[in-house]
Amino acid sequence: MSADAMIARVAAAVEEARESNPLAGSVTNGVTMDFVANAQLAAGGSAAMVYLPDEAEFLVEASGAFYVNMGTLMPIYEQTIPAATAKAQELGRPWVLDPVGIGIGALRGQLLEGMAGRKPTIIRGNASEIIALAALWGLSEEQGNVRGVDATDTVSAARTAAVELARWTGGAVAVSGPEDIVTDGHLVALSRGGAPLMEKVTGFGCSLGGVMAVHAAVADALTAALASVLLYNLAGARAATQAQAPASFKAAFLDAMFDAEPAEVAAHHFTIERA
Amino acid sequence: MSADAMIARVAAAVEEARESNPLAGSVTNGVTMDFVANAQLAAGGSAAMVYLPDEAEFLVEASGAFYVNMGTLMPIYEQTIPAATAKAQELGRPWVLDPVGIGIGALRGQLLEGMAGRKPTIIRGNASEIIALAALWGLSEEQGNVRGVDATDTVSAARTAAVELARWTGGAVAVSGPEDIVTDGHLVALSRGGAPLMEKVTGFGCSLGGVMAVHAAVADALTAALASVLLYNLAGARAATQAQAPASFKAAFLDAMFDAEPAEVAAHHFTIERA
Amino acid sequence: MSADAMIARVAAAVEEARESNPLAGSVTNGVTMDFVANAQLAAGGSAAMVYLPDEAEFLVEASGAFYVNMGTLMPIYEQTIPAATAKAQELGRPWVLDPVGIGIGALRGQLLEGMAGRKPTIIRGNASEIIALAALWGLSEEQGNVRGVDATDTVSAARTAAVELARWTGGAVAVSGPEDIVTDGHLVALSRGGAPLMEKVTGFGCSLGGVMAVHAAVADALTAALASVLLYNLAGARAATQAQAPASFKAAFLDAMFDAEPAEVAAHHFTIERA
Repeated sequence: MSADAMIARVAAAVEEARESNPLAGSVTNGVTMDFVANAQLAAGGSAAMVYLPDEAEFLVEASGAFYVNMGTLMPIYEQTIPAATAKAQELGRPWVLDPVGIGIGALRGQLLEGMAGRKPTIIRGNASEIIALAALWGLSEEQGNVRGVDATDTVSAARTAAVELARWTGGAVAVSGPEDIVTDGHLVALSRGGAPLMEKVTGFGCSLGGVMAVHAAVADALTAALASVLLYNLAGARAATQAQAPASFKAAFLDAMFDAEPAEVAAHHFTIERA
Repeated sequence: MSADAMIARVAAAVEEARESNPLAGSVTNGVTMDFVANAQLAAGGSAAMVYLPDEAEFLVEASGAFYVNMGTLMPIYEQTIPAATAKAQELGRPWVLDPVGIGIGALRGQLLEGMAGRKPTIIRGNASEIIALAALWGLSEEQGNVRGVDATDTVSAARTAAVELARWTGGAVAVSGPEDIVTDGHLVALSRGGAPLMEKVTGFGCSLGGVMAVHAAVADALTAALASVLLYNLAGARAATQAQAPASFKAAFLDAMFDAEPAEVAAHHFTIERA
Repeated sequence: MSADAMIARVAAAVEEARESNPLAGSVTNGVTMDFVANAQLAAGGSAAMVYLPDEAEFLVEASGAFYVNMGTLMPIYEQTIPAATAKAQELGRPWVLDPVGIGIGALRGQLLEGMAGRKPTIIRGNASEIIALAALWGLSEEQGNVRGVDATDTVSAARTAAVELARWTGGAVAVSGPEDIVTDGHLVALSRGGAPLMEKVTGFGCSLGGVMAVHAAVADALTAALASVLLYNLAGARAATQAQAPASFKAAFLDAMFDAEPAEVAAHHFTIERA
């Protein structure tokens, strides 16, 4: 696909999300729920979060796409997350996985292992998380260096793992960092942007995953993941021209996301190459 | 009651909340807890949230009024919510119900059904939620159209359901939307205001319920519900003159709520008519 | 120790936290998780929150210091909190306790009682909480007056309890209020600052505890607690010159925290005297 064709698709996805207000339900991280929901709304979507298994199944069915973020697991998630992902697979509903915290605790490992066969439509993580997930699913031998929720590997080091994961799922994988990678296993899109202050506010990664679910409700996996990444990189860069400290930056970012025109998002610099 | 008498009551309630700093404890939605607490504080109240049954009972007793929001149910809420509402009824403590998510999941249905006899002092929801609750309690035959947490019915369509619910509980019912309805089953107050951006920030509904609990600690049900609605409509309209995007709008709203004088709140336009 | 020596230590701690980006994991309050995490990041640390026992043990080990906040207890915390504090003790990892809600519910009482032997490195609370904890641990006979999460005792009334607690733990105790007390049982540091609006935003106390964990990862208990208190008092005072209402004040506060230079923090007014 040419970059021009991709630009047109991204613009259409960003616009369609604003026009059709898709519901993108989540089982997500307690720390960043508010940010996830507000980011989804700023992108044009609608948000709802649940903890219980039957509520998750209901919400998968009611949603255009679903979001599963592995932060702050509760005991009931042993049932809720498999129920949600099984329902998504059964219905062919797109869903986005953020494997945050991979490597911490037995339940997270067990749940993530069980997802290999569920084939998430989009996987989003930092470099260390993507490397660790590919290893967990037996797709590569590298292990990644996860420290709490922060990456200690570079994005380029995760490129191979991302491509392998995308080939396995048949969907898209996004690696977040100073340069973002989005791949469907065949093409690799690269985008820079955002701002260093994104590291100084909790939830930019989590909320990006939630926004990908909004876009996945109205577009194919690669387009949805790239549209969200470009929206974040554009809004982050704009916010950085307005705010030099984290709390005002976060507010400026959400405002910029809300204000961004589809054509502007799609025109944010990125390149495409073969995987 | 004349509109003038109502204006005086609203002003007194808003002022009394600021003077007496009533504690309004909650069992509430994980997505919007921070917004609920900060809105309660901005209205002059004090906030505390709990998850466990005995803590909820303690907090009902310690509070001037209590708030139960049905979002993001946890397994333990099967015990916590009945414990809290039973304690409120036993003590004659005012309490506010937000039936958010009605129709999603077995536990929420079971808990909401069990509340019919607990007679919440104030019920607040969007049009679809109010219609669905009246149907669940056998007070009307309409069903409502709930999609996730968003209303797909108009506020005026919920007027009958609201009146029926208020007659059943003996308290007040508030329906949130472009035009807000507040009724005690005999009188219906109508108020416009707020701003379209309220739809683009998560938690305006949830936090309004929390603020109603603050006002219910110092006023009768109808006055408390109307005072909160007018405060939200006034602060929303003011915030919209200061901010044109969601994150800055939310901050401007909380600031405007904090700054609003009791007489200004009571003077915000509303009408009263017979039910 | 002279005030000058203390100033040098505080400056070094604030600087070292910004340089070394220490991970300070938490089991913390659902209401204020976002604020805790963002405050920890603004102070230079890294944040991660968990609910499950084995995840907490992992995170204690991965963290420079750990934070346990007793708000919004879940049933699983019956296991999680003892697991975390036992692991911290076993590893000699510094940890910070915020006994918020002390007096509410059976589980909180049981957990807090069990912590007497775990000797938290820093205890932070309002006056009523500190008085109540000293009583619970049999260190004093006064009981304190807790109302929900608010203090009804003065800070000076809690001075004796704070000193007793610090002597018991061998760490530091901080009492938050209009005047803050920080003591290691031998010295008492007193600092004023902050702003009245801190009472009108939820989570200033919780997030202060989280920031103490960031500083405890790089400094001794007394220095870490005082560094955090001075940072809060400085940033609060600065934010109050920029914002007169709660939401804009909160944002200005986090921004001011992020911007504060180590030497400025250390130079914020405080006095030291013998306990």
